Amino acid sequence: MADRIIMLIFDGIGDRPVKELDGRTPLEAANTPNLDRYAEEGVNGIMDTIAPGIVPGSDTGHLALLGYNPYEVYTGRGPFEASGIGMKLSSGEVAFRCNFGTIEDDVVVDRRAGRIKEGTDSLAEAINEMDFDVDFVFRESVEHRAVLLFRDHSLGPFVSDVDPHDDGLPLKTSKAIDGDTSSQRTAELVNKFTEKSIHILSEHRVNVERQKKGLPPANVILPRGAGSVPDMKPLAEMKGIKSAAIAGIPLVRGVCELAGMDIIEVEWATGGLDTDVESIMSAVVDNVDRYDFIIVNIKGPDIPGHDGDYQEKIEFIERIDVSLPILESIENAYFAFTGDHSTPVTVKNHSGDPLPLIIKGDEVRVDHVTSYGERSCATGGLGRIRGSDLLNVLMNLAKRTEKFGA
Amino acid sequence: MADRIIMLIFDGIGDRPVKELDGRTPLEAANTPNLDRYAEEGVNGIMDTIAPGIVPGSDTGHLALLGYNPYEVYTGRGPFEASGIGMKLSSGEVAFRCNFGTIEDDVVVDRRAGRIKEGTDSLAEAINEMDFDVDFVFRESVEHRAVLLFRDHSLGPFVSDVDPHDDGLPLKTSKAIDGDTSSQRTAELVNKFTEKSIHILSEHRVNVERQKKGLPPANVILPRGAGSVPDMKPLAEMKGIKSAAIAGIPLVRGVCELAGMDIIEVEWATGGLDTDVESIMSAVVDNVDRYDFIIVNIKGPDIPGHDGDYQEKIEFIERIDVSLPILESIENAYFAFTGDHSTPVTVKNHSGDPLPLIIKGDEVRVDHVTSYGERSCATGGLGRIRGSDLLNVLMNLAKRTEKFGA
Repeated sequence: MADRIIMLIFDGIGDRPVKELDGRTPLEAANTPNLDRYAEEGVNGIMDTIAPGIVPGSDTGHLALLGYNPYEVYTGRGPFEASGIGMKLSSGEVAFRCNFGTIEDDVVVDRRAGRIKEGTDSLAEAINEMDFDVDFVFRESVEHRAVLLFRDHSLGPFVSDVDPHDDGLPLKTSKAIDGDTSSQRTAELVNKFTEKSIHILSEHRVNVERQKKGLPPANVILPRGAGSVPDMKPLAEMKGIKSAAIAGIPLVRGVCELAGMDIIEVEWATGGLDTDVESIMSAVVDNVDRYDFIIVNIKGPDIPGHDGDYQEKIEFIERIDVSLPILESIENAYFAFTGDHSTPVTVKNHSGDPLPLIIKGDEVRVDHVTSYGERSCATGGLGRIRGSDLLNVLMNLAKRTEKFGA
Repeated sequence: MADRIIMLIFDGIGDRPVKELDGRTPLEAANTPNLDRYAEEGVNGIMDTIAPGIVPGSDTGHLALLGYNPYEVYTGRGPFEASGIGMKLSSGEVAFRCNFGTIEDDVVVDRRAGRIKEGTDSLAEAINEMDFDVDFVFRESVEHRAVLLFRDHSLGPFVSDVDPHDDGLPLKTSKAIDGDTSSQRTAELVNKFTEKSIHILSEHRVNVERQKKGLPPANVILPRGAGSVPDMKPLAEMKGIKSAAIAGIPLVRGVCELAGMDIIEVEWATGGLDTDVESIMSAVVDNVDRYDFIIVNIKGPDIPGHDGDYQEKIEFIERIDVSLPILESIENAYFAFTGDHSTPVTVKNHSGDPLPLIIKGDEVRVDHVTSYGERSCATGGLGRIRGSDLLNVLMNLAKRTEKFGA
């Protein structure tokens, strides 16, 4: 009888020794009695999500964790964001993340348009009504965020951003990075799209109202992160498992959606530090009978990593630890506790440092490790594996792998 | 001066913790003073024969151990079985494993024809005399087993089995799995071959005699495991070493034959639990001066693994251990002690759990490990390597590897 597989991905959990913590990492310094117990009951190791020293994004990291080769399927963030907010995509289309921004005399004075909260649906409607050279869909997301999709299969994804990435800079002209004519065509189109967006948005009543209130108008669309919608074989087909994901942030949801996984909605899973970790764990328990494999992304630890706030990282890790025993009611399952990448507080960004990994379940070769940490796990019985191998390792343990050969 | 290389492959040696053994594996529970001493004198690690979590067959596993990429050369078991019983093959031909079976009104009532022991040579002769659309060779093997080879290079290997795999079921119609016309042609041919075999065998005097004695007639050929004969560069050419294999079972012999290796015959090496382990070790000693590299497959541990019999697995491992000191007379050699895949008694089948590995020889970086076991080896100085790297690691130690670069 095959067992279930549950992967808990603590986003950005891995770290480096911190002076103020006497050379311990935030995870090593955190009080994590439950994770320590799982390390003791399980087999441990370290994991390079993509490859040693490679710095994963949350998108490429989760692609690897699901067994995809990010070097094959990833050309940019756009399609994963688009999929993550529920847009239906077809492989070969080119998608962009966008911001609503504020432009004055060709200078982007605020690339978030004052973090605009209302009216972006009306602005998006106006954009979608415009005449354009190719079929496209533009969709607003949370606050100043949006997504643009060119519904054309002849376009190349390798173009630079229009978004200048800092306030006070002029709009950039998108260019083909690879010199390919298909990407050149995309660059021309996205430059034209931006130009037209200024004309349409500047006169829009939402912006007229904003200016009356002294708010910066959302009078330009700033596309970035172009990517081609990948042709990803569904996980069900690739691995023969029925799978679901719990993820607060659209980017990770998008990866899982494009892998053909179900998304389990958890009302208070915000993807922020205010997320309701207990509800996430309860949702795993509630849904475990419906799936062979559930992946759970808990964004929390990544945020203080980016902020360089080791104290907040420790506290969030401790909140995760407290929430975990709910999962112990699940039987006949193999659990992995790991991350998608490190976000060391000393780096304030993602890093390629390997992740600590526990695998727990009935028949693992329990090792001598007794605590969950970057260094304790490194001495464990799993040695050092890659992210793209993790699901295979779990499927083997859960007796879900067909023999290759005879 | 280059040293010799000897790989001892204990088939299915790897296992999982067993409750009845207080959480030890059969290997950990076995009394193995010699292997433990080798672990102490050597450098240790764990090995994924193909990749972490991938479940190898004995064929794909040995391909990897010899440095071939099974994903490139393996399409099915047929050609390796055919080569293993001494058939001469040419790359691109399609081979099948077959059973002599008993059919009644289109239902396979006994897919082993009462484990027929005599007369299959005469039956095979009759088959080989039949008119058919393509050149073919049919050869009987042990008991009810046989091999069919289509001597045609235009055929595809991706076809489903005619053999229904269980008694009491109708013959299956072979179909192309990949939808390719070359595989469709193979499917048509193998269906026709099976049909014709029934006509020829039903009236055969061997079967008339069998029925007189109340024995089930061997009146159908049941092909399965189609595979294309791979174009494998000989090991001598690929690695520059003169190599031989000792292997009781045809499947592994076939892999080694297709790698262009010599086969060392050992009379009492049966591939069963009754095999004469001492004779195998003596044969290594007797032949070591003739080769740079000898691989030895000892099938024994796999059998109780499949049966779920940890006691028998322990006993066989202990028999191997006792036989090993004969090898200590060999000088100037590097030895590897490992397996081709795990066959945990808890799984009763092959699994993708990593194998324990000792490498022993004059200049290895001796580590702290003092016993041969799945978990003790995991803490050793070799870390976690892949099967396809093992021969390279040994060749390097034996000073047999040319520098790549300058």
